[in-house]
Amino acid sequence: MAVYTHDELLALDKYFRINLVNTASGIRSANLIGSQNEASVSNLAVFNSLVHIGANPPCLGFVMRPLLVERHTYANIKKSGYYTINQVNSAIYKEGHQTSAKYVADTSEFTACGLTEEYRDDFPAPFVKESKLKIGMSFIEEHKIAYNDTILIIGKIEKLIVPSEVIGVDGCINHADLEAVAVSGLSSYYDCKYKDQLEFARPK
Amino acid sequence: MAVYTHDELLALDKYFRINLVNTASGIRSANLIGSQNEASVSNLAVFNSLVHIGANPPCLGFVMRPLLVERHTYANIKKSGYYTINQVNSAIYKEGHQTSAKYVADTSEFTACGLTEEYRDDFPAPFVKESKLKIGMSFIEEHKIAYNDTILIIGKIEKLIVPSEVIGVDGCINHADLEAVAVSGLSSYYDCKYKDQLEFARPK
Repeated sequence: MAVYTHDELLALDKYFRINLVNTASGIRSANLIGSQNEASVSNLAVFNSLVHIGANPPCLGFVMRPLLVERHTYANIKKSGYYTINQVNSAIYKEGHQTSAKYVADTSEFTACGLTEEYRDDFPAPFVKESKLKIGMSFIEEHKIAYNDTILIIGKIEKLIVPSEVIGVDGCINHADLEAVAVSGLSSYYDCKYKDQLEFARPK
Repeated sequence: MAVYTHDELLALDKYFRINLVNTASGIRSANLIGSQNEASVSNLAVFNSLVHIGANPPCLGFVMRPLLVERHTYANIKKSGYYTINQVNSAIYKEGHQTSAKYVADTSEFTACGLTEEYRDDFPAPFVKESKLKIGMSFIEEHKIAYNDTILIIGKIEKLIVPSEVIGVDGCINHADLEAVAVSGLSSYYDCKYKDQLEFARPK
């Protein structure tokens, strides 16, 4: 068994520590966040930090790294007020991962990475055509984490697009049927295999 | 294809909407958060909202539902300053799920759900013996989301415990080897299957 204290983690080789700590929180859904700047140049970036915030009203959050360098996703969201969240599936995980490369501001990651922009019903941000589960979002609020300057972005679900056949009678989406891909840390990808649906738990 | 606007989501049957919106953000690692009150009664609760915040210094976040009812995990963390995060694996996912039942304050979910408390090196919060990846945390800061009163809790990794044999030479933890279980929404469980490790992406 490996046991690391906080100080022992800090003393590790930088890349080993980044991978160890980034993967310690487990696997999470991989999502592409689409946005657009004032000159209508689209932007697309992969995130593994999507988190459910509430169902009434429907809203979601995600975490952005500190603004030490230019963050196009952040700038576009703050300027336009809109963005999209597009689930990564097994057919596009390599293209999705490639969006994490550092492209200059006037390059669209859609073109650079081989994914297709899709505009729907005047929604002011690009969806990913190849994604099967897509969410149109509007910005609500942001919180800066004082400890390390990361930023939590909260948005409202304006539009949820998902194939009818993967929605159960209870409303649950089956992510194995969507061939959704999960990610751990920065670059370890996983398939998900449906296991079980448990009942609402009550004391026994 | 099913397409829902924000207002159409609000108009859905309550339980269908809860499941649909909760599962829309995909699968996430399932984790048990352990804590202890002033009378040393332990508490254990399953969360699906763990999120990586930073590797230098190592810290993690998770989202708590609004404090409309008594939240033992929140009260214990704020009072003691310490908690543990324990990964759910396929051998204990039913026990883990059962911790979401509403137990009264003087009942320990460890006993009630059939999991074993483990205390290590005077760390002032209980770990889950049956869990293979365990993290000892200290509270750093909290952020209240104005939109719906949920709370983001940020903590520092004080101790990371993980079997040496699942850590790669690059520091990446293999969650398939840990038989980690992921969850979507409140009750859909998934196994994870290792797929691929991609290179750090650079513009092509």
